[in-house]
Amino acid sequence: MAGGRVPAICAPLVGRTRAALAAEAAAVAARQPDLIEWRVDFFEPLADTGEVLAAAAAVKQAAAGIPILFTRRAQREGGQPIPLSESRVLDLYAAVAASGTVDAMDFEMENAPADVARVRELTRAHGLALVLSFHDFQRTPPTPDLQQRFAQAQRLGADVAKLAVMPQSMEDVHRLLGATLAASQSLTIPVVSMAMGGLGAVSRLCGGVFGSALTFAVGAAASAPGQVPIDEVRATLAVLQRATGA
Amino acid sequence: MAGGRVPAICAPLVGRTRAALAAEAAAVAARQPDLIEWRVDFFEPLADTGEVLAAAAAVKQAAAGIPILFTRRAQREGGQPIPLSESRVLDLYAAVAASGTVDAMDFEMENAPADVARVRELTRAHGLALVLSFHDFQRTPPTPDLQQRFAQAQRLGADVAKLAVMPQSMEDVHRLLGATLAASQSLTIPVVSMAMGGLGAVSRLCGGVFGSALTFAVGAAASAPGQVPIDEVRATLAVLQRATGA
Repeated sequence: MAGGRVPAICAPLVGRTRAALAAEAAAVAARQPDLIEWRVDFFEPLADTGEVLAAAAAVKQAAAGIPILFTRRAQREGGQPIPLSESRVLDLYAAVAASGTVDAMDFEMENAPADVARVRELTRAHGLALVLSFHDFQRTPPTPDLQQRFAQAQRLGADVAKLAVMPQSMEDVHRLLGATLAASQSLTIPVVSMAMGGLGAVSRLCGGVFGSALTFAVGAAASAPGQVPIDEVRATLAVLQRATGA
Repeated sequence: MAGGRVPAICAPLVGRTRAALAAEAAAVAARQPDLIEWRVDFFEPLADTGEVLAAAAAVKQAAAGIPILFTRRAQREGGQPIPLSESRVLDLYAAVAASGTVDAMDFEMENAPADVARVRELTRAHGLALVLSFHDFQRTPPTPDLQQRFAQAQRLGADVAKLAVMPQSMEDVHRLLGATLAASQSLTIPVVSMAMGGLGAVSRLCGGVFGSALTFAVGAAASAPGQVPIDEVRATLAVLQRATGA
């Protein structure tokens, strides 16, 4: 947007059953996001790999060509509680990666280094993009920590680095945007960031001009606080794009 | 906006004749800005005080109750060349202030201290708000200078402090927003800021969440680079307000 970059729009899926997911995916796909994120930690039959693969196929069909990002958000980073061990989560990532139903995977960079390496290998083996992410639902870490997190994602082999933080002030939002701008210029991979909640909503609408390559918006249901309806995000991005090009 | 503040929208008038101004004021008033700025340095019969007062009355009538900000922008701060000495500019400010046709006046804080003091006196005497402004059409001064400019306006008795700068990078835009946020929290008067040009357009759309109390938008014609049409500014502010309150 600055320099011609317009951020892509990603809409999440949070359905708890295969039927709910398929309906949600169809509703979301109709809003034409650039990317659909399936938050599999919301999916109740998560322990049944066959059911997950069937749901993945249903989502892919409903998405009608829109790329799909597969994400088990860890509970300690804001995800839902799930009945799977980390070892079984990795097996699930491997099965989904091999299934040809998704285009990208998100994994927290704070997971065990061996697990991050394994997810890096299996995404590479199957030609999927890897998002390495960091979330803080309580606060916005100090600026050097934000910088370090972006760099860590690249160092660990991510194709995309993602940071989501909770601001406690507009200064926090301003710091996140500054760290994003710096990382977008110093790293070789795309960076994505958001300040969550109402205070941070400006980052979901205007983060693109500060270097964030992607913004999460509500297609059918929100997956994190502060997400804005996709039509409003799209309208705002269009205004910004016209104004920036003026 | 953050903290419930939504910036007011000001649309400029740049007509060169009384007839053009009256038509422009009517067109702008129909878009319902919160404030209309008459940039009198664009007005060709500027040296004829009677003609200026007649035009001011015409603008006031066309504005239909929308408050009017009277501004002679100095050429060295981006205004038009005018045939008046500073002494005659001050006489014009005095005549307009006494005429009851405007609600506020803008004067550059870099003008001679005695002139700033005189404009401060005459606005106070006539119950008008005083905007003390600083513009840099070439660059964005260092952050301490931005802070000092906001504080200087308050020290000189402004009712509103306004800074407009030209960014050469998104870092400059980010610095301006940070300085605005800090000034909005440390000063007792409202602050207004904008980074001009396409690069800075985000500041015109989202500056409110960083403490800017006013944004200039195009009603009929732009008065500075990067101004966005008023309907697009209003739509964006509405999205931000809903999202921030979410």
